Amino acid sequence: MSLTAQEVAIDLGDRSYRIAIGGGLLSSATTYDGLPRAGAALIVSNTTVAPLYMAALRAALSERYPQVHEVRLPDGEAHKDWQTVQKIFDVLLERGCDRKTVLFALGGGVVGDMTGFAAASYMRGVPFVQVPTTLLAQVDSSVGGKTAINHPQGKNMIGAFYQPQLVVCDLDVLDTLPPRELSAGLAEVIKYGPIADMAFMEWLEAHIDALLARDRAALVHAVRRSCEIKAWVVGQDERESGLRAILNFGHTFGHAIEAGMGYGAWLHGEGVGAGMVMAAELSHRLGLVDAAFVQRLTVLIARAGLPTQGPVLDSNDNAGRYLELMRVDKKSEAGEIRFVVIDGPGRAALRSAPDRLVRDVIDACCK
Amino acid sequence: MSLTAQEVAIDLGDRSYRIAIGGGLLSSATTYDGLPRAGAALIVSNTTVAPLYMAALRAALSERYPQVHEVRLPDGEAHKDWQTVQKIFDVLLERGCDRKTVLFALGGGVVGDMTGFAAASYMRGVPFVQVPTTLLAQVDSSVGGKTAINHPQGKNMIGAFYQPQLVVCDLDVLDTLPPRELSAGLAEVIKYGPIADMAFMEWLEAHIDALLARDRAALVHAVRRSCEIKAWVVGQDERESGLRAILNFGHTFGHAIEAGMGYGAWLHGEGVGAGMVMAAELSHRLGLVDAAFVQRLTVLIARAGLPTQGPVLDSNDNAGRYLELMRVDKKSEAGEIRFVVIDGPGRAALRSAPDRLVRDVIDACCK
Repeated sequence: MSLTAQEVAIDLGDRSYRIAIGGGLLSSATTYDGLPRAGAALIVSNTTVAPLYMAALRAALSERYPQVHEVRLPDGEAHKDWQTVQKIFDVLLERGCDRKTVLFALGGGVVGDMTGFAAASYMRGVPFVQVPTTLLAQVDSSVGGKTAINHPQGKNMIGAFYQPQLVVCDLDVLDTLPPRELSAGLAEVIKYGPIADMAFMEWLEAHIDALLARDRAALVHAVRRSCEIKAWVVGQDERESGLRAILNFGHTFGHAIEAGMGYGAWLHGEGVGAGMVMAAELSHRLGLVDAAFVQRLTVLIARAGLPTQGPVLDSNDNAGRYLELMRVDKKSEAGEIRFVVIDGPGRAALRSAPDRLVRDVIDACCK
Repeated sequence: MSLTAQEVAIDLGDRSYRIAIGGGLLSSATTYDGLPRAGAALIVSNTTVAPLYMAALRAALSERYPQVHEVRLPDGEAHKDWQTVQKIFDVLLERGCDRKTVLFALGGGVVGDMTGFAAASYMRGVPFVQVPTTLLAQVDSSVGGKTAINHPQGKNMIGAFYQPQLVVCDLDVLDTLPPRELSAGLAEVIKYGPIADMAFMEWLEAHIDALLARDRAALVHAVRRSCEIKAWVVGQDERESGLRAILNFGHTFGHAIEAGMGYGAWLHGEGVGAGMVMAAELSHRLGLVDAAFVQRLTVLIARAGLPTQGPVLDSNDNAGRYLELMRVDKKSEAGEIRFVVIDGPGRAALRSAPDRLVRDVIDACCK
């Protein structure tokens, strides 16, 4: 691996940490220098990822931790619930793990979210490290300290803001990522353009094919720039009292798609892909961006291999079903849905919109 | 009510809050001035406390919150688990509660711990208020931000450090407290003497009968001084990295008693009563305090109506069973049990002890 590892710093006072980006990081013991010492580590993974990387991570950690335990969770968003998190607690207690034990999340966003919530809650908080194995987790979910599980009535409804000690973005692991998951990850990469950095959007338009071909240099740039923008936003608003909400561009519609189709039917990034088109269309109908901008974003999303139209969730009243699902979104206040809109290219804002307008957007953007 | 309400401040930077102590507070709308505004409040109580105070609290809050929802949980430590917390989330989501919703914990330590954990976790954190209805909760569990639920393998193993916005210690509610619970609360009052304030211990020796007779002036002093000491400790060590652990004097043995007997058989304060005698005896055998000090503390605990001897948990190897249960305590590190000992009257410290010595203490202190 000829690449030098790169770093992005997340500046949050005494909760600051770094994101390491590069090749060969996961299996190198030196990657973990500086982490807190402990008698034991626990690697949390799933049945898909563990066979690929568990042994390598375990070997790298065995120099640092006298005991390295592991737990393999069932794979998929449908399992992101209390019953699955409970398996992590069961192993921690069965193995007599104390409150210095370091948890390692080895997997995608689901594993990271559950491991982070378990780390936040076990004995009221133990250290944890994110080792994301999907592009989506590397550029978004593993950075910023949002952890959560789903409730039958809503996605990510139960969780904590809890920062990791380190995020390890090993680009080698993307080689084993199925194409559909690569595209889903690109949805979260693409979002950083319209909300914060049109130069990055231009770069993506020029390099989307290279990214799909897993060109290493292109991936390094995409992951690093995504993490930089996320670090900048999270550094200003760790607990999402304002600015941070812009990172949810496309997510209000996207969450409705995921929940309405049943978790797992659409990948999160696929919901965000179609959701960004809907949110851009809403921005246009609110007079904030022109039609050409919506078209340009739609083309980029399509080129990334993502859906640009939402599914029909209810053939009788599709828009009504979307609205119903969006009203339980965490950003809603007193039943009013708050949308992330594009307030001019490269700039996002949070605002409400008349139901009538939202219905028109849904009708125009679903098939 | 002629008493003027008193206040104790908990100084934790942007997580600071106040404890209001006095009569008639719960049912007075002005008590809640200064709390964040929201479209809704949720009162969490249990089937024992709700019939007594739910209507009064609801009336006091209805001026401030357009909607006041409620949930009644089953009563008792045996229900301090995920299934019960889930009932809180279910109501919050069924009622469409957003992330400004304020939770009110109306009950004892179990209700407070579960409501606090639910508030810490719902949408990654909503505001909450403690309205403790037991002496134990007023002087200890509702102050300081420790929230948790039990795991089948250990007490308070899953939780969060999460501070309330306000603690309302209404002394009127102690009039309906069963005598056994009053005594259990006194265990947590008594502990503040040996660990931090021998003048307070002397005051308790002079006023223990008045406290048992629920003399209002004595209760005000006991609650206020307990909260002051706790505030002083928590202000220095919010997340229990050191000093704060002294508040667990008697709790390592006490938790073993509670777990070994099955949660609920012994009240928490009863376990702490016997546990303080054992911890004092251990301190004596470690050469830290004289026998007269142990005797003096034992007498005070007995006068409060609390057990001064632990139960036999295993007739074959009682000490072994205690040790086994204590090793899963959160303060243990790498299997080594860390005891809060009295390092001289009015001063506590955290230290380990040889198993042999601990066995002798258990043998001497159980019947």
